[in-house]
Amino acid sequence: MKYYFALPFFVLLTLLGAGGATRFPGPPNIIILFCDDLGYGDLSGYGHPTIRTPNLDRMAAEGMKFTNFYSGSPACTASRYALLTGRFPARSGFDWVLYPGSERGIHPREWTLAEGLKRAGYATACFGKWHLGSTKKEYLPLQNGFDEYLGLPYSNDMLPPQHPPIALIEGNDTLQLNPGQEQLSALYTERAKAFIRKHGRERFFVYLPYAMPHVPLHPGEAFAGRSPRGAYGDVVEEIDWSVGEILKVLKDEGIERNTLVFFTSDNGPWIIRDSLGGSAGLLRDGKGSTWEGGMRVPGIAWWPGAVEAGALQLQPASTLDLYATCLALAGQELPAGRSVDGRDISNLLLGKTDAAATEKPYFYYGPRELQAVRKGPWKLHVITSSQTGRDYFNGKLPLLFNLDADPSEMYDLSAARPDIVRDLMAEIERQKRAVAEEGSFFGK
Amino acid sequence: MKYYFALPFFVLLTLLGAGGATRFPGPPNIIILFCDDLGYGDLSGYGHPTIRTPNLDRMAAEGMKFTNFYSGSPACTASRYALLTGRFPARSGFDWVLYPGSERGIHPREWTLAEGLKRAGYATACFGKWHLGSTKKEYLPLQNGFDEYLGLPYSNDMLPPQHPPIALIEGNDTLQLNPGQEQLSALYTERAKAFIRKHGRERFFVYLPYAMPHVPLHPGEAFAGRSPRGAYGDVVEEIDWSVGEILKVLKDEGIERNTLVFFTSDNGPWIIRDSLGGSAGLLRDGKGSTWEGGMRVPGIAWWPGAVEAGALQLQPASTLDLYATCLALAGQELPAGRSVDGRDISNLLLGKTDAAATEKPYFYYGPRELQAVRKGPWKLHVITSSQTGRDYFNGKLPLLFNLDADPSEMYDLSAARPDIVRDLMAEIERQKRAVAEEGSFFGK
Repeated sequence: MKYYFALPFFVLLTLLGAGGATRFPGPPNIIILFCDDLGYGDLSGYGHPTIRTPNLDRMAAEGMKFTNFYSGSPACTASRYALLTGRFPARSGFDWVLYPGSERGIHPREWTLAEGLKRAGYATACFGKWHLGSTKKEYLPLQNGFDEYLGLPYSNDMLPPQHPPIALIEGNDTLQLNPGQEQLSALYTERAKAFIRKHGRERFFVYLPYAMPHVPLHPGEAFAGRSPRGAYGDVVEEIDWSVGEILKVLKDEGIERNTLVFFTSDNGPWIIRDSLGGSAGLLRDGKGSTWEGGMRVPGIAWWPGAVEAGALQLQPASTLDLYATCLALAGQELPAGRSVDGRDISNLLLGKTDAAATEKPYFYYGPRELQAVRKGPWKLHVITSSQTGRDYFNGKLPLLFNLDADPSEMYDLSAARPDIVRDLMAEIERQKRAVAEEGSFFGK
Repeated sequence: MKYYFALPFFVLLTLLGAGGATRFPGPPNIIILFCDDLGYGDLSGYGHPTIRTPNLDRMAAEGMKFTNFYSGSPACTASRYALLTGRFPARSGFDWVLYPGSERGIHPREWTLAEGLKRAGYATACFGKWHLGSTKKEYLPLQNGFDEYLGLPYSNDMLPPQHPPIALIEGNDTLQLNPGQEQLSALYTERAKAFIRKHGRERFFVYLPYAMPHVPLHPGEAFAGRSPRGAYGDVVEEIDWSVGEILKVLKDEGIERNTLVFFTSDNGPWIIRDSLGGSAGLLRDGKGSTWEGGMRVPGIAWWPGAVEAGALQLQPASTLDLYATCLALAGQELPAGRSVDGRDISNLLLGKTDAAATEKPYFYYGPRELQAVRKGPWKLHVITSSQTGRDYFNGKLPLLFNLDADPSEMYDLSAARPDIVRDLMAEIERQKRAVAEEGSFFGK
């Protein structure tokens, strides 16, 4: 069943400011569930044989499963920047990973998704890993559009003696030093549920960036030792439980038909941590790399009544698009005075085709530099890198792959298709120039 | 929801010979849908990003998805022998692939699943690739328990000039030389549907071994050029269509609650054929290898009302077990005078745990020789091989893996667990001795 009529109807309702018990009673609540280092192959529904994720599989069966969904970066900080600003990491003005002593953080002039939704009247909260700076108060969530914050502001491996004690922050203040990590998934989940219950009659935005399955792996007591996959499976199964809890509270509150929930990951699996890291399934490499395994991640959209149940979405999309999409759904304009790279993918969510989805290039950034581009099925690497140290094509560059036919990036077609190479090379040069010309807010 | 009460109830009914509109009205119809070279990662529900298999995904959602299901061999003939006799390939008396000129074929004293079900009163048919010999009439399906046969008796790449013209056989006779391969999936499907309709009020067994997705890839006209994955995706999507047709006819005839359908593959993907071959997902290697990618395949059981909808089955099982299970469901004893290696997995199908499932060793055979064994999560390789020529561990043997924690066979634990190595070495020696002592029917 397709919803060809749905989008114009919704646009009309939004324009007229109509509400009530209609199919689209105004802008939806928005929940983004964001894993840390979860790989493309780490859910049952994406092919993992021994990690059981029944809640996520049901979420996909009731919603839309993306198979070409990208994080904004193969590393933590840059990926969160991209999600919350809709902009490629190179625009941030800092490297792809911030450490507790890093001077920079998200610039005050960035306009986060939370700031946009707040302006549109949403109650906003973040429960989890921030990782966009903390050495200045202005970098913290409450100064970036969130009404509430609770969480570790850094990765859970940024510990003494290399780093200061890790702090659990509530609002702008330290609540506890070195909190037990095994409590985090449950704590974030409880806070999110309480926030949803409290604001269920208003509009709300909940951003839930889990601490897990980033190494070190700390499952809660009820999950430790439960997965045949080991500790990695335990923490993923706990996240699956958390997702089940979130969807359940929406149903209990009767607001599931007016809430868009999106589940995804900040980057691919940390494969150099051996069996403590996850799996990218059939994709090459993992975290830290612009091979597909580093940036293509699970992506599940759930919005009963709007997103078709059991839909499979093969079109490329990314976390940057969530920014533009959520603001569009909220009836909020994109911010002026900057480039926004994400695009509104409501059409895809509503089961319509979207020509722009296949034609707008998507760029893969390393620590600072642009390494690859995708346009339609074609991906061109001008740089490759891997935390494993492996060079899969013995230094040959550029490399061209047809990702639809060859998702594992096995068969280089650069010699066969010089026309595509030329086109994508031009896209890369255009992108580099545009980003360099605009610069970051730090340079202004 | 679990069916703890179901098995004793069923056993009771069977003992009493009861029938009628009960939950288990006697032995079920049985349909085995058997792909050729379909890899573990080649269905949407097993993680492929660009092959769309909505019917198979729905079949899994309405049934049970196995994630540790094995073919009997990493090659065609041996795998079919194992499925139809419940016996490891080394007992067959011939190598793992038969060619049109091969002197041997399935020995008349073997007792196939079709012979067992025929004795239990089933109407039986095979539509598709036989590949168990044809140089003597006694090797063909009609002499091995099938009432009807239509199909290519060999792989679809066994063509002139190396081989005689490929024949489409009906019964024992050649119907057509060199038939257009693009018609085969539809032809087998139509014949299976007609047979089901004809025998819907009796008990029937349909074995449908598809010619595809074995190279050369020949999609039907309606599927050619349709999949973003290319020709490989086209033929898999056509098989998905075929599965949908089969399940639909069962529902149309109102016999779906009394029919067990099992979908699987004869071995892993033929990865040395590059993008013409499939994908084993996160598993290592493919067809021809005893690495997991060569033998672990998709496995979906569907039996509305008996098999729990949406069940995920992590316990190991294999095509050999289908033999013992189907005969048990039909109330038919296993044949005497030979070893049967498969075990009855009705318990697993009915959602009960099965201790034997984890403790009975499973053996991985190469062309003739025993290469590896699995017991519980542990797999020991004493030989490894790959059609790619790659030796992933630089000749180190034996190799021990915990497949639950490490499905990709990355982390050798042989040094850490000498106790497990010893135990599995003993299993291998026991198995070799037992098979050598019994020999094949050809030696008797």
